[in-house]
Amino acid sequence: MSERFEVWAPDGMPEVRPGDDLAALVGDVVSTGSTTGGSLPVVEPVETTGPGDGGLREGDVVVVTSKIVSKAEGRVVAAADREQAVTDETVRVVATRPRPDGPPLRIVENRLGLVMAAAGVDASNTPDGTVLLLPVDPDASAARLRAALRERFGVDRLGVVVTDTAGRAWRDGLVDIAIGAAGVAVVDDLRGGTDTHGRPLSVTVTAVVDEIAAASELVRGKAAGRPVAVVRGLGRYVPPGWQPGDGARRLVRGSADDLFREGTAEAYARGYDDGAAGREPRP
Amino acid sequence: MSERFEVWAPDGMPEVRPGDDLAALVGDVVSTGSTTGGSLPVVEPVETTGPGDGGLREGDVVVVTSKIVSKAEGRVVAAADREQAVTDETVRVVATRPRPDGPPLRIVENRLGLVMAAAGVDASNTPDGTVLLLPVDPDASAARLRAALRERFGVDRLGVVVTDTAGRAWRDGLVDIAIGAAGVAVVDDLRGGTDTHGRPLSVTVTAVVDEIAAASELVRGKAAGRPVAVVRGLGRYVPPGWQPGDGARRLVRGSADDLFREGTAEAYARGYDDGAAGREPRP
Repeated sequence: MSERFEVWAPDGMPEVRPGDDLAALVGDVVSTGSTTGGSLPVVEPVETTGPGDGGLREGDVVVVTSKIVSKAEGRVVAAADREQAVTDETVRVVATRPRPDGPPLRIVENRLGLVMAAAGVDASNTPDGTVLLLPVDPDASAARLRAALRERFGVDRLGVVVTDTAGRAWRDGLVDIAIGAAGVAVVDDLRGGTDTHGRPLSVTVTAVVDEIAAASELVRGKAAGRPVAVVRGLGRYVPPGWQPGDGARRLVRGSADDLFREGTAEAYARGYDDGAAGREPRP
Repeated sequence: MSERFEVWAPDGMPEVRPGDDLAALVGDVVSTGSTTGGSLPVVEPVETTGPGDGGLREGDVVVVTSKIVSKAEGRVVAAADREQAVTDETVRVVATRPRPDGPPLRIVENRLGLVMAAAGVDASNTPDGTVLLLPVDPDASAARLRAALRERFGVDRLGVVVTDTAGRAWRDGLVDIAIGAAGVAVVDDLRGGTDTHGRPLSVTVTAVVDEIAAASELVRGKAAGRPVAVVRGLGRYVPPGWQPGDGARRLVRGSADDLFREGTAEAYARGYDDGAAGREPRP
Protein backbone atom coordinates (compact mmCIF):
# COMPACT_ATOMS: atom_id res chain seq x y z
CA MET A 1 0.00 0.00 0.00
CA SER A 2 1.08 3.54 -0.37
CA GLU A 3 -0.27 6.98 0.06
CA ARG A 4 -0.43 9.13 -3.03
CA PHE A 5 -1.79 12.46 -4.10
CA GLU A 6 -1.47 14.65 -7.13
CA VAL A 7 -1.57 18.38 -7.70
CA TRP A 8 -2.42 20.02 -11.00
CA ALA A 9 -2.86 23.56 -12.16
CA PRO A 10 -4.79 24.07 -15.39
CA ASP A 11 -4.09 26.81 -17.87
CA GLY A 12 -6.73 29.09 -19.18
CA MET A 13 -7.82 31.22 -16.24
CA PRO A 14 -8.62 34.64 -17.64
CA GLU A 15 -7.73 37.90 -15.94
CA VAL A 16 -10.16 38.35 -13.06
CA ARG A 17 -11.95 41.66 -12.66
CA PRO A 18 -13.93 43.22 -9.84
CA GLY A 19 -17.42 41.78 -9.76
CA ASP A 20 -16.53 38.64 -11.71
CA ASP A 21 -18.21 35.41 -10.65
CA LEU A 22 -15.09 33.78 -9.32
CA ALA A 23 -16.71 30.41 -8.70
CA ALA A 24 -17.86 30.25 -12.31
CA LEU A 25 -14.39 31.06 -13.60
CA VAL A 26 -12.75 28.55 -11.27
CA GLY A 27 -15.31 25.92 -12.15
CA ASP A 28 -14.70 26.49 -15.84
CA VAL A 29 -10.94 26.22 -15.61
CA VAL A 30 -10.96 23.04 -13.52
CA SER A 31 -13.39 21.50 -15.99
CA THR A 32 -11.36 22.41 -19.03
CA GLY A 33 -8.12 21.27 -17.45
CA SER A 34 -9.53 17.84 -16.79
CA THR A 35 -11.14 17.22 -20.11
CA THR A 36 -8.04 18.03 -22.13
CA GLY A 37 -6.34 15.45 -19.98
CA GLY A 38 -3.02 17.09 -19.35
CA SER A 39 -0.07 14.80 -19.63
CA LEU A 40 -0.99 12.32 -16.92
CA PRO A 41 -4.38 10.69 -17.35
CA VAL A 42 -5.39 9.25 -14.04
CA VAL A 43 -7.34 6.07 -13.55
CA GLU A 44 -8.78 6.06 -10.11
CA PRO A 45 -11.64 4.12 -8.53
CA VAL A 46 -13.28 6.90 -6.58
CA GLU A 47 -16.85 7.79 -5.93
CA THR A 48 -17.92 10.53 -8.28
CA THR A 49 -21.20 12.30 -8.52
CA GLY A 50 -19.87 14.81 -10.99
CA PRO A 51 -19.53 14.84 -14.75
CA GLY A 52 -17.35 11.78 -15.08
CA ASP A 53 -13.72 12.41 -15.92
CA GLY A 54 -13.91 16.18 -15.87
CA GLY A 55 -14.27 18.59 -13.01
CA LEU A 56 -14.04 17.97 -9.33
CA ARG A 57 -14.40 14.80 -7.28
CA GLU A 58 -15.15 13.84 -3.71
CA GLY A 59 -12.20 14.67 -1.50
CA ASP A 60 -10.63 17.20 -3.86
CA VAL A 61 -9.13 20.40 -2.53
CA VAL A 62 -9.25 23.47 -4.77
CA VAL A 63 -6.46 25.94 -4.06
CA VAL A 64 -6.67 29.53 -5.28
CA THR A 65 -4.36 32.44 -4.79
CA SER A 66 -5.72 35.30 -2.75
CA LYS A 67 -4.98 37.56 -5.72
CA ILE A 68 -7.92 36.32 -7.74
CA VAL A 69 -10.19 36.40 -4.71
CA SER A 70 -9.15 40.00 -4.05
CA LYS A 71 -9.68 40.97 -7.66
CA ALA A 72 -13.15 39.44 -7.84
CA GLU A 73 -14.07 41.08 -4.55
CA GLY A 74 -12.94 44.48 -5.75
CA ARG A 75 -10.06 44.79 -3.32
CA VAL A 76 -8.18 46.89 -5.83
CA VAL A 77 -7.26 50.39 -4.73
CA ALA A 78 -5.65 53.20 -6.64
CA ALA A 79 -2.18 53.80 -5.38
CA ALA A 80 0.62 55.72 -6.96
CA ASP A 81 2.83 53.52 -4.85
CA ARG A 82 2.31 50.83 -2.31
CA GLU A 83 3.47 52.59 0.82
CA GLN A 84 0.30 54.46 1.78
CA ALA A 85 -1.75 51.33 1.27
CA VAL A 86 0.64 49.43 3.53
CA THR A 87 0.28 52.07 6.20
CA ASP A 88 -3.52 51.85 5.95
CA GLU A 89 -3.50 48.06 6.30
CA THR A 90 -1.04 48.01 9.19
CA VAL A 91 -2.43 47.18 12.60
CA ARG A 92 0.95 46.90 14.30
CA VAL A 93 4.51 47.27 13.08
CA VAL A 94 6.55 44.19 13.92
CA ALA A 95 9.94 45.02 12.42
CA THR A 96 11.52 47.25 9.81
CA ARG A 97 14.70 47.11 7.81
CA PRO A 98 16.17 49.96 5.79
CA ARG A 99 16.65 49.21 2.11
CA PRO A 100 19.29 50.88 -0.03
CA ASP A 101 17.03 51.21 -3.05
CA GLY A 102 13.72 52.29 -1.61
CA PRO A 103 11.58 52.83 1.46
CA PRO A 104 12.20 50.61 4.48
CA LEU A 105 10.92 47.05 4.41
CA ARG A 106 8.03 46.89 6.84
CA ILE A 107 6.98 43.62 8.40
CA VAL A 108 3.64 44.24 10.01
CA GLU A 109 0.60 42.61 11.47
CA ASN A 110 -2.34 43.27 9.19
CA ARG A 111 -6.10 43.22 9.76
CA LEU A 112 -6.20 39.45 9.39
CA GLY A 113 -3.62 39.04 12.13
CA LEU A 114 -1.07 37.89 9.54
CA VAL A 115 2.50 39.04 9.98
CA MET A 116 3.84 39.80 6.52
CA ALA A 117 6.05 42.14 4.59
CA ALA A 118 4.09 45.14 3.36
CA ALA A 119 0.97 43.95 5.18
CA GLY A 120 0.30 41.61 2.29
CA VAL A 121 -0.43 44.52 -0.05
CA ASP A 122 0.46 43.44 -3.56
CA ALA A 123 1.77 45.58 -6.36
CA SER A 124 2.46 42.74 -8.80
CA ASN A 125 0.07 41.05 -11.18
CA THR A 126 -2.22 44.08 -11.06
CA PRO A 127 -2.56 47.03 -13.44
CA ASP A 128 -0.22 49.97 -13.03
CA GLY A 129 -1.41 52.56 -10.61
CA THR A 130 -3.25 50.00 -8.50
CA VAL A 131 -2.44 47.68 -5.67
CA LEU A 132 -4.30 44.67 -4.38
CA LEU A 133 -5.35 44.36 -0.80
CA LEU A 134 -5.97 40.98 0.77
CA PRO A 135 -9.57 39.78 0.96
CA VAL A 136 -11.51 41.11 3.92
CA ASP A 137 -12.32 37.60 5.16
CA PRO A 138 -10.55 34.87 3.24
CA ASP A 139 -12.15 32.10 5.28
CA ALA A 140 -15.57 33.40 4.26
CA SER A 141 -14.38 33.72 0.67
CA ALA A 142 -13.25 30.10 0.78
CA ALA A 143 -16.61 29.02 2.17
CA ARG A 144 -18.54 30.85 -0.56
CA LEU A 145 -16.36 29.43 -3.29
CA ARG A 146 -16.74 25.96 -1.81
CA ALA A 147 -20.52 26.21 -1.67
CA ALA A 148 -20.74 27.22 -5.32
CA LEU A 149 -18.35 24.53 -6.52
CA ARG A 150 -20.08 21.83 -4.49
CA GLU A 151 -23.31 22.72 -6.16
CA ARG A 152 -21.90 22.94 -9.65
CA PHE A 153 -20.03 19.65 -9.51
CA GLY A 154 -22.39 17.78 -7.23
CA VAL A 155 -19.72 16.90 -4.69
CA ASP A 156 -20.23 16.71 -0.96
CA ARG A 157 -16.67 16.55 0.35
CA LEU A 158 -14.74 19.45 -1.10
CA GLY A 159 -12.02 21.66 0.32
CA VAL A 160 -11.04 25.15 -0.72
CA VAL A 161 -7.84 26.88 0.32
CA VAL A 162 -6.94 30.52 -0.34
CA THR A 163 -3.21 31.16 -0.36
CA ASP A 164 -0.77 34.01 -0.11
CA THR A 165 2.99 34.18 -0.38
CA ALA A 166 4.99 34.97 2.72
CA GLY A 167 8.52 35.15 4.04
CA ARG A 168 9.65 33.41 7.17
CA ALA A 169 11.74 34.30 10.15
CA TRP A 170 15.14 32.58 10.06
CA ARG A 171 14.81 31.31 6.49
CA ASP A 172 15.39 32.86 3.11
CA GLY A 173 12.93 32.50 0.32
CA LEU A 174 9.16 32.65 0.25
CA VAL A 175 6.53 29.95 0.49
CA ASP A 176 2.79 29.96 0.10
CA ILE A 177 0.63 29.69 3.20
CA ALA A 178 -3.10 29.33 3.71
CA ILE A 179 -4.94 32.50 4.66
CA GLY A 180 -8.41 31.08 4.05
CA ALA A 181 -9.85 27.58 4.18
CA ALA A 182 -13.18 25.77 4.06
CA GLY A 183 -14.15 22.14 4.02
CA VAL A 184 -10.67 20.90 4.81
CA ALA A 185 -8.94 20.11 8.08
CA VAL A 186 -6.73 23.06 8.90
CA VAL A 187 -4.49 21.03 11.16
CA ASP A 188 -3.78 17.37 11.67
CA ASP A 189 -3.77 17.12 15.41
CA LEU A 190 -1.79 14.09 16.40
CA ARG A 191 -1.75 14.86 20.08
CA GLY A 192 -3.22 11.85 21.80
CA GLY A 193 -1.75 9.62 19.11
CA THR A 194 1.43 7.63 19.42
CA ASP A 195 4.68 7.44 17.50
CA THR A 196 6.12 4.27 16.02
CA HIS A 197 7.48 3.30 19.45
CA GLY A 198 4.12 3.70 21.13
CA ARG A 199 4.94 6.91 22.96
CA PRO A 200 2.45 9.76 23.02
CA LEU A 201 2.91 12.48 20.42
CA SER A 202 2.44 15.54 22.54
CA VAL A 203 3.49 18.40 20.33
CA THR A 204 2.68 17.43 16.83
CA VAL A 205 0.02 19.63 15.35
CA THR A 206 0.68 19.74 11.64
CA ALA A 207 -0.45 22.79 9.68
CA VAL A 208 -2.03 20.74 6.91
CA VAL A 209 -3.48 23.64 4.91
CA ASP A 210 -0.14 25.44 4.88
CA GLU A 211 1.43 22.30 3.44
CA ILE A 212 -1.34 22.10 0.85
CA ALA A 213 -0.73 25.76 -0.02
CA ALA A 214 3.00 25.15 -0.40
CA ALA A 215 2.48 22.08 -2.56
CA SER A 216 0.12 23.93 -4.87
CA GLU A 217 2.58 26.76 -5.42
CA LEU A 218 4.93 24.33 -7.11
CA VAL A 219 2.54 24.08 -10.06
CA ARG A 220 0.86 27.46 -9.88
CA GLY A 221 3.96 29.64 -9.93
CA LYS A 222 4.14 33.41 -9.90
CA ALA A 223 4.91 34.25 -13.47
CA ALA A 224 2.90 31.57 -15.18
CA GLY A 225 -0.64 32.81 -14.69
CA ARG A 226 -2.07 29.68 -13.10
CA PRO A 227 -3.87 30.92 -10.03
CA VAL A 228 -5.92 27.76 -9.47
CA ALA A 229 -4.78 24.27 -8.53
CA VAL A 230 -6.56 21.07 -7.55
CA VAL A 231 -5.15 18.61 -5.05
CA ARG A 232 -6.53 15.11 -5.38
CA GLY A 233 -5.83 12.22 -3.01
CA LEU A 234 -5.93 13.95 0.36
CA GLY A 235 -9.53 13.00 0.99
CA ARG A 236 -8.76 12.02 4.57
CA TYR A 237 -8.41 15.73 5.31
CA VAL A 238 -11.75 16.54 3.65
CA PRO A 239 -14.38 15.25 6.03
CA PRO A 240 -18.11 14.91 5.42
CA GLY A 241 -20.41 17.24 7.26
CA TRP A 242 -17.95 20.12 7.49
CA GLN A 243 -19.43 23.18 9.12
CA PRO A 244 -18.01 26.70 9.04
CA GLY A 245 -15.93 27.32 12.11
CA ASP A 246 -12.23 27.63 12.44
CA GLY A 247 -10.72 28.29 9.09
CA ALA A 248 -7.17 29.28 8.29
CA ARG A 249 -7.49 31.99 10.91
CA ARG A 250 -6.88 29.14 13.36
CA LEU A 251 -3.24 29.15 12.29
CA VAL A 252 -2.59 32.75 13.20
CA ARG A 253 -0.71 32.76 16.46
CA GLY A 254 -2.05 35.55 18.63
CA SER A 255 0.56 38.21 19.31
CA ALA A 256 0.22 37.72 23.06
CA ASP A 257 1.51 34.17 22.62
CA ASP A 258 4.09 34.95 20.03
CA LEU A 259 7.70 34.96 21.13
CA PHE A 260 8.56 37.01 18.04
CA ARG A 261 5.78 39.56 18.08
CA GLU A 262 8.33 42.32 17.79
CA GLY A 263 11.59 42.35 15.90
CA THR A 264 14.83 42.00 17.83
CA ALA A 265 16.10 45.50 17.14
CA GLU A 266 12.74 47.08 17.92
CA ALA A 267 12.37 45.20 21.20
CA TYR A 268 15.93 45.99 22.19
CA ALA A 269 15.44 49.68 21.48
CA ARG A 270 12.20 49.80 23.43
CA GLY A 271 13.83 48.01 26.35
CA TYR A 272 16.82 50.30 26.21
CA ASP A 273 14.62 53.39 26.34
CA ASP A 274 12.59 52.01 29.25
CA GLY A 275 15.73 51.04 31.14
CA ALA A 276 17.47 54.32 30.55
CA ALA A 277 14.37 56.23 31.65
CA GLY A 278 13.96 54.13 34.75
CA ARG A 279 10.47 53.01 33.77
CA GLU A 280 8.90 49.74 34.89
CA PRO A 281 9.71 46.98 32.40
CA ARG A 282 7.06 46.40 29.75
CA PRO A 283 8.15 43.30 27.87
CA MET B 1 -1.91 22.36 -21.00
CA SER B 2 -1.51 22.05 -17.33
CA GLU B 3 1.19 21.49 -14.82
CA ARG B 4 0.89 18.40 -12.70
CA PHE B 5 2.91 16.46 -10.19
CA GLU B 6 2.29 13.61 -7.83
CA VAL B 7 3.66 12.62 -4.46
CA TRP B 8 3.61 9.11 -3.11
CA ALA B 9 4.97 7.48 0.01
CA PRO B 10 5.38 3.71 -0.10
CA ASP B 11 4.87 1.45 2.87
CA GLY B 12 7.38 -1.10 3.95
CA MET B 13 10.39 0.86 5.16
CA PRO B 14 11.89 -1.13 8.03
CA GLU B 15 13.23 0.41 11.21
CA VAL B 16 16.59 1.94 10.36
CA ARG B 17 19.56 1.17 12.56
CA PRO B 18 23.00 2.71 12.90
CA GLY B 19 25.25 1.50 10.14
CA ASP B 20 22.41 0.48 7.81
CA ASP B 21 22.88 1.09 4.11
CA LEU B 22 20.25 3.81 3.84
CA ALA B 23 20.43 4.07 0.08
CA ALA B 24 19.77 0.35 -0.26
CA LEU B 25 16.74 0.53 2.03
CA VAL B 26 15.37 3.61 0.27
CA GLY B 27 15.98 2.05 -3.11
CA ASP B 28 14.16 -1.09 -2.05
CA VAL B 29 11.11 0.70 -0.71
CA VAL B 30 10.69 2.94 -3.76
CA SER B 31 10.97 -0.11 -5.99
CA THR B 32 8.41 -2.12 -4.08
CA GLY B 33 5.99 0.79 -3.88
CA SER B 34 6.01 1.22 -7.61
CA THR B 35 5.64 -2.38 -8.63
CA THR B 36 2.59 -3.02 -6.49
CA GLY B 37 1.09 -0.05 -8.28
CA GLY B 38 -0.64 1.74 -5.46
CA SER B 39 -4.07 3.00 -6.28
CA LEU B 40 -3.18 5.36 -9.12
CA PRO B 41 -1.29 3.76 -11.99
CA VAL B 42 0.33 6.49 -13.99
CA VAL B 43 0.80 6.50 -17.72
CA GLU B 44 3.45 9.03 -18.56
CA PRO B 45 5.61 9.53 -21.63
CA VAL B 46 8.90 10.28 -19.91
CA GLU B 47 12.40 9.25 -20.66
CA THR B 48 13.38 6.35 -18.45
CA THR B 49 16.62 4.50 -18.23
CA GLY B 50 15.52 2.53 -15.20
CA PRO B 51 13.71 -0.73 -14.74
CA GLY B 52 10.50 0.19 -16.50
CA ASP B 53 7.50 0.90 -14.34
CA GLY B 54 9.23 0.42 -11.03
CA GLY B 55 11.73 2.55 -9.23
CA LEU B 56 12.84 6.05 -10.00
CA ARG B 57 12.69 8.10 -13.18
CA GLU B 58 14.40 11.13 -14.65
CA GLY B 59 13.30 14.25 -12.81
CA ASP B 60 12.09 12.50 -9.67
CA VAL B 61 12.78 13.94 -6.25
CA VAL B 62 13.20 11.51 -3.35
CA VAL B 63 12.28 13.02 0.00
CA VAL B 64 13.41 11.42 3.25
CA THR B 65 12.97 12.48 6.82
CA SER B 66 16.12 13.43 8.66
CA LYS B 67 15.20 10.81 11.24
CA ILE B 68 16.20 7.91 9.05
CA VAL B 69 19.34 9.68 7.91
CA SER B 70 20.28 10.30 11.56
CA LYS B 71 19.59 6.72 12.49
CA ALA B 72 21.66 5.27 9.67
CA GLU B 73 24.46 7.68 10.48
CA GLY B 74 24.45 6.68 14.13
CA ARG B 75 23.31 10.03 15.43
CA VAL B 76 21.61 8.31 18.34
CA VAL B 77 22.79 9.27 21.80
CA ALA B 78 21.87 7.91 25.16
CA ALA B 79 19.87 10.41 27.10
CA ALA B 80 17.76 9.94 30.15
CA ASP B 81 15.95 13.00 28.90
CA ARG B 82 16.30 15.37 26.03
CA GLU B 83 17.39 18.49 27.88
CA GLN B 84 21.14 17.83 28.15
CA ALA B 85 21.28 16.87 24.50
CA VAL B 86 19.52 20.11 23.61
CA THR B 87 22.04 22.07 25.63
CA ASP B 88 24.89 20.30 23.85
CA GLU B 89 23.45 21.06 20.41
CA THR B 90 22.68 24.69 21.18
CA VAL B 91 24.89 27.29 19.56
CA ARG B 92 22.77 30.27 20.59
CA VAL B 93 19.54 30.60 22.52
CA VAL B 94 16.98 32.56 20.54
CA ALA B 95 13.97 32.52 22.85
CA THR B 96 12.52 30.56 25.74
CA ARG B 97 9.06 30.10 27.12
CA PRO B 98 8.20 28.56 30.47
CA ARG B 99 5.96 25.52 30.31
CA PRO B 100 3.61 24.51 33.12
CA ASP B 101 4.29 20.80 32.72
CA GLY B 102 8.01 20.59 32.15
CA PRO B 103 11.24 22.42 31.47
CA PRO B 104 11.11 25.66 29.48
CA LEU B 105 10.64 25.46 25.75
CA ARG B 106 13.91 26.48 24.16
CA ILE B 107 14.06 27.81 20.64
CA VAL B 108 17.69 27.81 19.66
CA GLU B 109 20.08 28.05 16.78
CA ASN B 110 21.76 24.69 16.33
CA ARG B 111 25.02 23.65 14.65
CA LEU B 112 23.37 23.72 11.23
CA GLY B 113 22.27 27.30 11.74
CA LEU B 114 18.66 26.16 11.99
CA VAL B 115 16.44 27.90 14.50
CA MET B 116 14.22 25.26 16.03
CA ALA B 117 12.58 24.16 19.22
CA ALA B 118 14.89 21.89 21.21
CA ALA B 119 17.68 22.38 18.66
CA GLY B 120 16.01 19.75 16.50
CA VAL B 121 16.82 17.00 19.01
CA ASP B 122 14.18 14.35 18.69
CA ALA B 123 12.83 12.10 21.41
CA SER B 124 10.08 10.52 19.34
CA ASN B 125 10.29 7.56 16.99
CA THR B 126 13.46 6.38 18.75
CA PRO B 127 13.94 3.75 21.45
CA ASP B 128 13.44 4.76 25.06
CA GLY B 129 16.52 6.17 26.71
CA THR B 130 17.82 7.58 23.46
CA VAL B 131 17.39 10.75 21.47
CA LEU B 132 18.17 11.47 17.85
CA LEU B 133 20.41 14.32 16.83
CA LEU B 134 20.16 15.86 13.40
CA PRO B 135 22.65 14.67 10.80
CA VAL B 136 26.01 16.39 10.92
CA ASP B 137 25.75 17.58 7.31
CA PRO B 138 22.37 16.89 5.75
CA ASP B 139 23.37 18.38 2.41
CA ALA B 140 26.23 15.89 2.21
CA SER B 141 23.89 13.11 3.30
CA ALA B 142 21.52 14.10 0.50
CA ALA B 143 24.37 14.09 -2.01
CA ARG B 144 25.52 10.62 -0.95
CA LEU B 145 22.02 9.21 -1.10
CA ARG B 146 21.51 10.79 -4.50
CA ALA B 147 24.72 9.31 -5.88
CA ALA B 148 23.78 5.81 -4.78
CA LEU B 149 20.22 6.03 -6.10
CA ARG B 150 21.36 7.44 -9.44
CA GLU B 151 23.64 4.50 -9.88
CA ARG B 152 21.11 1.91 -8.81
CA PHE B 153 18.29 3.19 -10.98
CA GLY B 154 20.38 4.50 -13.85
CA VAL B 155 18.93 7.99 -13.72
CA ASP B 156 20.85 11.16 -14.40
CA ARG B 157 18.49 13.84 -13.13
CA LEU B 158 17.50 13.01 -9.59
CA GLY B 159 16.84 15.16 -6.57
CA VAL B 160 17.06 14.22 -2.91
CA VAL B 161 15.64 16.29 -0.08
CA VAL B 162 16.15 15.65 3.64
CA THR B 163 13.39 17.10 5.79
CA ASP B 164 12.72 18.01 9.38
CA THR B 165 9.64 19.31 11.14
CA ALA B 166 9.67 22.85 12.46
CA GLY B 167 7.48 25.48 14.01
CA ARG B 168 7.16 28.98 12.66
CA ALA B 169 7.10 32.44 14.11
CA TRP B 170 3.60 33.97 13.99
CA ARG B 171 1.84 30.75 12.98
CA ASP B 172 0.59 27.76 14.91
CA GLY B 173 1.24 24.26 13.76
CA LEU B 174 4.32 22.62 12.32
CA VAL B 175 5.41 22.05 8.75
CA ASP B 176 8.25 20.15 7.19
CA ILE B 177 11.20 22.09 5.80
CA ALA B 178 14.28 21.04 3.86
CA ILE B 179 17.47 20.77 5.87
CA GLY B 180 19.42 18.95 3.17
CA ALA B 181 19.18 18.87 -0.61
CA ALA B 182 21.06 17.59 -3.64
CA GLY B 183 20.31 17.56 -7.32
CA VAL B 184 17.34 19.85 -7.03
CA ALA B 185 16.99 23.63 -7.28
CA VAL B 186 16.79 24.93 -3.75
CA VAL B 187 15.10 28.14 -4.80
CA ASP B 188 13.23 29.31 -7.85
CA ASP B 189 14.70 32.71 -8.37
CA LEU B 190 12.27 34.79 -10.36
CA ARG B 191 14.14 38.04 -9.95
CA GLY B 192 14.77 39.32 -13.41
CA GLY B 193 11.54 37.73 -14.58
CA THR B 194 8.27 39.54 -15.04
CA ASP B 195 4.76 39.18 -13.71
CA THR B 196 1.66 38.78 -15.84
CA HIS B 197 1.60 42.55 -16.43
CA GLY B 198 5.17 42.64 -17.61
CA ARG B 199 6.62 44.25 -14.52
CA PRO B 200 9.84 42.97 -12.99
CA LEU B 201 9.52 40.50 -10.13
CA SER B 202 12.07 41.88 -7.76
CA VAL B 203 11.49 40.02 -4.55
CA THR B 204 10.24 36.63 -5.47
CA VAL B 205 12.67 33.94 -4.50
CA THR B 206 10.60 30.86 -3.81
CA ALA B 207 11.94 28.27 -1.39
CA VAL B 208 11.20 25.35 -3.69
CA VAL B 209 12.72 22.62 -1.53
CA ASP B 210 10.77 23.78 1.51
CA GLU B 211 7.59 23.49 -0.54
CA ILE B 212 8.64 20.02 -1.69
CA ALA B 213 9.30 19.07 1.93
CA ALA B 214 5.89 20.34 2.99
CA ALA B 215 4.13 18.53 0.17
CA SER B 216 5.82 15.25 1.03
CA GLU B 217 4.78 15.45 4.67
CA LEU B 218 1.15 15.18 3.60
CA VAL B 219 1.72 11.56 2.60
CA ARG B 220 4.56 10.64 4.93
CA GLY B 221 2.92 11.62 8.19
CA LYS B 222 4.37 11.30 11.65
CA ALA B 223 2.59 8.30 13.04
CA ALA B 224 2.36 6.21 9.91
CA GLY B 225 5.92 5.04 9.51
CA ARG B 226 6.46 6.25 5.94
CA PRO B 227 9.73 8.14 6.06
CA VAL B 228 10.31 8.13 2.30
CA ALA B 229 8.34 9.88 -0.44
CA VAL B 230 8.85 10.38 -4.16
CA VAL B 231 7.77 13.53 -5.99
CA ARG B 232 7.27 13.05 -9.71
CA GLY B 233 6.53 15.81 -12.20
CA LEU B 234 8.74 18.62 -10.94
CA GLY B 235 11.53 17.81 -13.39
CA ARG B 236 12.01 21.47 -14.24
CA TYR B 237 13.57 21.84 -10.79
CA VAL B 238 15.89 18.87 -11.33
CA PRO B 239 18.50 20.07 -13.79
CA PRO B 240 21.10 18.00 -15.63
CA GLY B 241 24.70 18.45 -14.66
CA TRP B 242 24.01 19.35 -11.03
CA GLN B 243 27.17 19.85 -9.02
CA PRO B 244 27.45 19.97 -5.24
CA GLY B 245 27.30 23.52 -4.06
CA ASP B 246 24.63 25.33 -2.21
CA GLY B 247 22.27 22.86 -0.73
CA ALA B 248 19.47 23.51 1.73
CA ARG B 249 21.96 25.43 3.84
CA ARG B 250 21.32 28.20 1.33
CA LEU B 251 17.93 28.75 2.97
CA VAL B 252 19.30 29.43 6.42
CA ARG B 253 19.15 33.16 6.95
CA GLY B 254 22.31 34.24 8.72
CA SER B 255 21.61 35.63 12.18
CA ALA B 256 23.28 38.92 11.29
CA ASP B 257 20.55 39.47 8.68
CA ASP B 258 17.72 38.10 10.67
CA LEU B 259 15.28 40.61 12.11
CA PHE B 260 14.13 37.93 14.58
CA ARG B 261 17.44 36.53 15.70
CA GLU B 262 16.41 37.00 19.29
CA GLY B 263 12.98 36.64 20.85
CA THR B 264 11.06 39.77 21.75
CA ALA B 265 11.20 39.28 25.49
CA GLU B 266 14.90 38.42 25.44
CA ALA B 267 15.80 41.44 23.31
CA TYR B 268 13.69 43.72 25.45
CA ALA B 269 15.33 42.45 28.62
CA ARG B 270 18.81 42.86 27.19
CA GLY B 271 17.99 46.38 26.04
CA TYR B 272 16.48 47.23 29.38
CA ASP B 273 19.59 46.09 31.21
CA ASP B 274 21.88 48.01 28.89
CA GLY B 275 19.75 51.15 29.15
CA ALA B 276 19.48 50.97 32.91
CA ALA B 277 23.23 50.45 33.22
CA GLY B 278 24.01 53.34 30.91
CA ARG B 279 25.94 51.12 28.49
CA GLU B 280 26.30 51.81 24.81
CA PRO B 281 23.44 50.23 22.86
CA ARG B 282 24.20 46.80 21.41
CA PRO B 283 21.24 45.92 19.22
